[in-house]
This record gives sequence, structure tokens and C-alpha cells, in this order.
Amino acid sequence: ITEDNMEELRNQLLELHPYDQAKFFSKLSKVERTQIYHYFSPEEMALIFENIEIDETEYEEFLSEMHPSFVATMLSSMYADDAVDLLNELDKEQVASYLTIMEDGAAREIKDLLHYEEYTAGSIMTTEYIAIKEYQTVRSAMQILKAEAPRAESIYYVYVIDEDKRLAGVISLRDLIVTEDDTFISEIMYDRVMSVSVSEDQEEVARKMKDYNFLALPVVDFQNHLLGIITVDDIIDVMAEEASDDYSKLAGVSDMDGIDKGPLAAAKKRLPWLVILLFLGMLTASIIGRFEATLDQVAILAVFIPLIAGMAGNTGTQALAVAVRGIATGDVDKESRAKLILREAGTGVITGTSCGFLVIMVVYVWKGDIYLGILVGISILITLIVATLAGALVPLLMHKLNIDPAVASGPFITTINDLISILIYFGLATAFMHYLVQ
Amino acid sequence: ITEDNMEELRNQLLELHPYDQAKFFSKLSKVERTQIYHYFSPEEMALIFENIEIDETEYEEFLSEMHPSFVATMLSSMYADDAVDLLNELDKEQVASYLTIMEDGAAREIKDLLHYEEYTAGSIMTTEYIAIKEYQTVRSAMQILKAEAPRAESIYYVYVIDEDKRLAGVISLRDLIVTEDDTFISEIMYDRVMSVSVSEDQEEVARKMKDYNFLALPVVDFQNHLLGIITVDDIIDVMAEEASDDYSKLAGVSDMDGIDKGPLAAAKKRLPWLVILLFLGMLTASIIGRFEATLDQVAILAVFIPLIAGMAGNTGTQALAVAVRGIATGDVDKESRAKLILREAGTGVITGTSCGFLVIMVVYVWKGDIYLGILVGISILITLIVATLAGALVPLLMHKLNIDPAVASGPFITTINDLISILIYFGLATAFMHYLVQ
Repeated sequence: ITEDNMEELRNQLLELHPYDQAKFFSKLSKVERTQIYHYFSPEEMALIFENIEIDETEYEEFLSEMHPSFVATMLSSMYADDAVDLLNELDKEQVASYLTIMEDGAAREIKDLLHYEEYTAGSIMTTEYIAIKEYQTVRSAMQILKAEAPRAESIYYVYVIDEDKRLAGVISLRDLIVTEDDTFISEIMYDRVMSVSVSEDQEEVARKMKDYNFLALPVVDFQNHLLGIITVDDIIDVMAEEASDDYSKLAGVSDMDGIDKGPLAAAKKRLPWLVILLFLGMLTASIIGRFEATLDQVAILAVFIPLIAGMAGNTGTQALAVAVRGIATGDVDKESRAKLILREAGTGVITGTSCGFLVIMVVYVWKGDIYLGILVGISILITLIVATLAGALVPLLMHKLNIDPAVASGPFITTINDLISILIYFGLATAFMHYLVQ
Repeated sequence: ITEDNMEELRNQLLELHPYDQAKFFSKLSKVERTQIYHYFSPEEMALIFENIEIDETEYEEFLSEMHPSFVATMLSSMYADDAVDLLNELDKEQVASYLTIMEDGAAREIKDLLHYEEYTAGSIMTTEYIAIKEYQTVRSAMQILKAEAPRAESIYYVYVIDEDKRLAGVISLRDLIVTEDDTFISEIMYDRVMSVSVSEDQEEVARKMKDYNFLALPVVDFQNHLLGIITVDDIIDVMAEEASDDYSKLAGVSDMDGIDKGPLAAAKKRLPWLVILLFLGMLTASIIGRFEATLDQVAILAVFIPLIAGMAGNTGTQALAVAVRGIATGDVDKESRAKLILREAGTGVITGTSCGFLVIMVVYVWKGDIYLGILVGISILITLIVATLAGALVPLLMHKLNIDPAVASGPFITTINDLISILIYFGLATAFMHYLVQ
């Protein structure tokens, strides 16, 4: 970037899709960014910031490089929901100072949206929707639509409200287009309109949008007043975020976005988990320590420790994933909870019996000791039943206690199951010691 | 359901959203379903089957209950992509027989779509799009749009094609509505239209739709001929499917949809994994068997087996998840591959050193044996470095060999890392035996 080619670059950039502009912009140096602010209008920067994907700390950095009044104008030009997302990354003082110098209307809209709790419908909705009254005709509705189209975030549904701003119906643009101009809205509107409550969880909103194939959903308060809309593009982001979140939690990583981060940042995210698991592992070690007498007599017992602990971990992770996913998709509710537990118990019995028999045979052939085979096989049987049940019970219990069940990660349940399986294995070995020592 | 109230039920059902109709329908018994076929038209059933979520085997069952010509008419009324999804669940003979009795136009459209490979853009696209020519005016474009709206799957983008059906541009309905009627399409169309190739992976399509916030994307062949469109509602389903797939693979379950399945079905899905892991576990056991002499001399070594194996598994799962996710989102490509490996090595050194020191102290305090502490600590250090690297390398290698990296599940990498960690631990113990036996 030099001063000379700046005009040309500007024109080329503006021809790109805003997402590509944002990608380009986010890769620039501080000096280059300053030149961009100089040549781009706040409205053009608004488009870039609506599409940018950068780290939380970078928002503050980038904004501090611009003149405050430039930021204020940019925020006013952004869709309210995107402006709120951006402001949520800044500290409260900064937010307040930008809001003070913004024009009143936009500032008020943003202030209203800033109040909603994270991860609720309110936090992802926007107020730029199109609303009409039911006594209007299709013609006048289309006029409103044309006038508001440049500003509205979605024009593909038009919402019908009554005198008190209560949601009364919905019409799709598709229906408006194919209907005669003189038809009254009341005749063609769909009055059993599906809406979401402003405090509803964003995952629940995503589920509705997915099941019903809507492009936007109206958001209402408890008295059915229309507060805003949630558009499908925001829901896609929510879905991607939640999927990535569930996935990383299953793996015991607190946060995923880190390919471009250094090892120190990565270690910082993983160490807390590892240290907790280390102490749980120490607990398991101390349990084996209790059985030192048993071990001294039958040293070969040690050989099968990783096998039994490993199988417990594996089956537990499987059961955990099914339960967490079932809770997340809403398939597991109060009635089906008992059914799931019974099912998992049954699954544990079947997999445990199969693996148990296999182990008895393999150990017998390998070591020529049928008693050792039976001990390891029965340990596998009991372990698999208990570990499968634990994998399902822990997330169900957490869900009941209103803790996000995804927090019970794979490594966590694996380590817990290591402990349980060792107890079972050494417990059995000690109880039936006289068969093993001959 | 009785004969008497059937008319009433029919009217009530038809007032519901098709998704709710489908949910109701899928819960009926065979006798009740037969009554529904009797009272509903093929067109009404088409809406239900576009929205139904049932098991693969149920499609065949439900269709076999209807008269073949009823099925044919229903298939013709469905959006082509949904009809293809349904037909893909049936065997080839049945598909052929339905296609023979369908009207020619619809049958041809469906036949064309059936050819595309699963998980490609072609397999999820639909041919019901709206196309116009660039020499048309906004007025004539709107006329075409109104005429085709009832049939088109998405009317919110209109595609501009040349004489050879090559994709030349795109206009959104939003732009059409706010533009003067006499304007030529060529003046307002956007000619740098983003499209996807018919053979492109559906995950890649989903990524583009997410990044660029489109409601539909055109699908073209290698000569840029417009073949169809992919709408955002199908992409949402793809995203949900892929997320669930990645998640279940990380947990070592081949398939997730099973809350309402019995234990036998669940066990059938999990057993193959468990048996493979069992044999890997046996391999680990046989390695410890090789070190029986070491174990006999220092029985206390057995105490720390689950701790070391467990830590290796945990850190491996973390690294695995980051790598698999990075590959899936496209963040990890050829250039960043080496960077990721270096980063993971660094992360392993940091977490290994931290946990290693912690372990030395804890073991020393607990057992009062500094040499044992150092042995376990250094084993943890080396194990964590190797296991972290393995967690990252395995999916990268699989990706390079064109195997889906998600197949390297958490349990798999955990079991592999169990094995590696046992080798390291006992190898070190045997080498430095004289410090331990005093």
C-alpha cells in the first residue's frame, strides 16, 4: 500500500464481497490500517466490521486507532445486532463514551439490545425488521417494504402488529409478490406465527429455525410484543459456535480458536484440565497403592491395568457423547431419561459380556491361566457396565443440576472411569486371591 | 383417529406448519397412516415428506403402504432435492419403478440429480431456481418471478444466464424491488457472482454460505453452466449433520441417532470400536508383560500405570480435537501444517514440564522416594510431549492420505497413547533400575 495506489486499491476492495474486504483488512499492519481509515467512509468501514472475524482483543485495538466520532458514525451505520456484538468486546467505559457521541436513535436501539443476557434470543436479535398493520393493503405494504428495504436486515418476512405492537401475524415477501395489490393484509397473513421469547436460549432458537426452515424468527416479550427478529445468518453462526463448543468440551479443551496462537497460549488453555486430571490420576494411583499386597503376590495383575482402565474410559466416552448430544438436541427429556439409563445399562451388559468372553479366551490362550482369564474377563464385564452407566449418568445429573452437561468432558469421564475400573479389578483380585496364587 | 373426526383432524393438521404435520404423522400406527393416505392428497403428503425426520428403513415401509401412483404424484410435487433425498433411501429397483410411472419432466429432473455423489454440492442442490436473461427489464423479471414463485425453492435470488445457460450474474429480490421497472437487468446485476462447483464437498459449501451470509448459492459445472441452487435451509441440515458426525467420531461412536433405539442396536454400533480398542489394549498388556522382570523387582511401578497412561490419553485427545477441528474449518492447510506441529511440540514441552514437576513433588512427598518421583515425573514429561505430538500428527497424516481425520477418534488416540506411554515409562524404569532398587 502506498499513497499513490490507494485510490485504486480502494475501488478494487469495494468491488469485493464485504467478507473478503474484512479478511483483507484484518491482515493489514497498523500503519496500513490507518491509511484505510483515511480513505474509507464510516459506512464502508461498517460493512467491513459487520463481516470481520478477529480476536476479542483486536476489536479494542482497531477501534482505538480511529477517531471516536468516526467510530460513532460507523456504529450507527451497522446493523444494531452487529454493533452490539462489537461493543460487547469493549469495556463499559468505552461503550458509554461511544454511545454518548452517537446520534440518539441508533444509540437508544443499541442500548436496548446491550441489556440482554449472552446466549439468549435477545442477545442475537436485531431491531431492523419491517412491520405493518393488518388493515393495510398489499400495495401499501409493498411501499413500506421498498422504503425500508435498504435499512432492514431481512425483508423476506413482513410482520403484522396491532396497535399495541403485539405480534399478530406474518407474511412472506413471496406471498406479497404473488397477491393482488388491493388485497388486505388481514386476508392473507398467517396468524399462527411462530415466535421465540426474548429470554430463550439461542440453541433453542437455532433448533426451531432448523426444524421449520425459517429465514427469520420474530422475538417477543412475555406479552407478545414484537421486540426484534433473528435472521438465519446469525443462527448459522450460533450453530457453528455451539458445535465447536461441544466438540472442544468433549476433548477437554476449554476453547478452540488457537491454530494461529503460540504454544504458551495453547498450554494455558489445556493445563487447567490436565492438572485436575493429574490429581484424579493420583487418586487412582493411591488406590492401587492400597492393593500393594495383592500386587506383590500376583505381579502379573499389573499387566492388565491399562487394558481395563482404557476400556472403561472408551465405553464411558461413548455413553457420554450419546447422552450429551441427546440432551443438546432435546431428544433426552424427563420421560426419556429413565429410558436412556436403562438402555445404557443394557448396552453395557451386552458390550461387557462380549468383550469379557473375548478377554477370557485371549488371556487363557496367552497366559494359559484360566483363573486369571476369568478375573480379567469379569472385571471387564463389570467395568463396562459401570463405566457405560457412569458415562450416561454424569451428564444427566449435571443437566438436572442446571450445569452444562458438556462440561463433563471425555478426559474427565475417562479419568473417573479409570478410577472405578481399578477399584473393581483390584477388589475382585483381592477377594479371589487364592485362585490366583497357586 | 376414527372415521368420523377424520375431516376435522385433516383440517386441523393442514393448519399446522408442515414440520409439525410431519412430526404428528411419524408417530402414527400403520392403520392410522393408511387413513391419512386416504384423506390427504399426494400434494399434501409431499409437504409432510419434505419435512419428516424418520429412520432410513421407515421410508421404505411408509412408501410401500401407499399406492405406487400416489407415491409417483407425491414425488413429482416435492422439491426435486427432497424427492432425491427420499429416493436415496430406497433400493434401485423401487426407484426405477417409481420413476417409470412419474410424469416425464419431474422424472428427468430427479434422474439427473440422483447421479451426483453423496456429500457433494450436486447431491444437495435443487433445480427449482429462477433464471432470467440480462437483456430483460426489471418488470419482465418480476413477471417471471411471480409466475415461478409457487414452484421455485428460493425466490430471493434470481440468476442471470447467457444463451448457453452459463451463469452471468445474480440479482437479489431486494434489489429488484427497489429498482425502477424499466431498468435493464444488465445494469443492476452483480456479475462477480460466487458459485460452487457441482463436485465440491458439502462442508465447503456450508463454509462459504456461513462466511458470506448467502441465502442460496448457485451450483455450476466446470464450464460455468448453471445446474442448480443450494438453499440455506439445506445447508443448516448439512451443518447439523457434520457437527454431530465429528462429535460422535471423537467419542468413538459410529453414529448418533439412537436415543429411541434399544440396547442391542446401540451395542452393535459401539462394539466394533470396543473390540478394536480391546486388541490394542492387549498389545499394551503384552508390552507390560515384556517388562515383568522390572515389575517383579519394583512392584510399586504398577501404581503409576493408570496415571501415566491416562495423562497421555488426555493430552492426546486435546491435541487431536484441535487438529481435527482446524482441518475441518480449513484453518490448517499446507503452510500452517508445520506451524501446527511445532506449536503442539511446544505445548507438549510446556504442559509436560509443568505436570512433570508437579508429579515429582507429589510422589516425593507421598512415597518419600526422590528417584521414583523423578522417574514418574520424567515419564510424564516425555509422554506428554510425544502424546501431544501424536494427537496432532495422526489426523494430519490421515488428512494427507485423504482419509477423514475425524476417524482418528478420541478413544483410538487414547489407546495408542496408552501404549506409547507404557513403553516410555517401563523403558525408563528398566534403564535406570539401579536407582530404584536400593
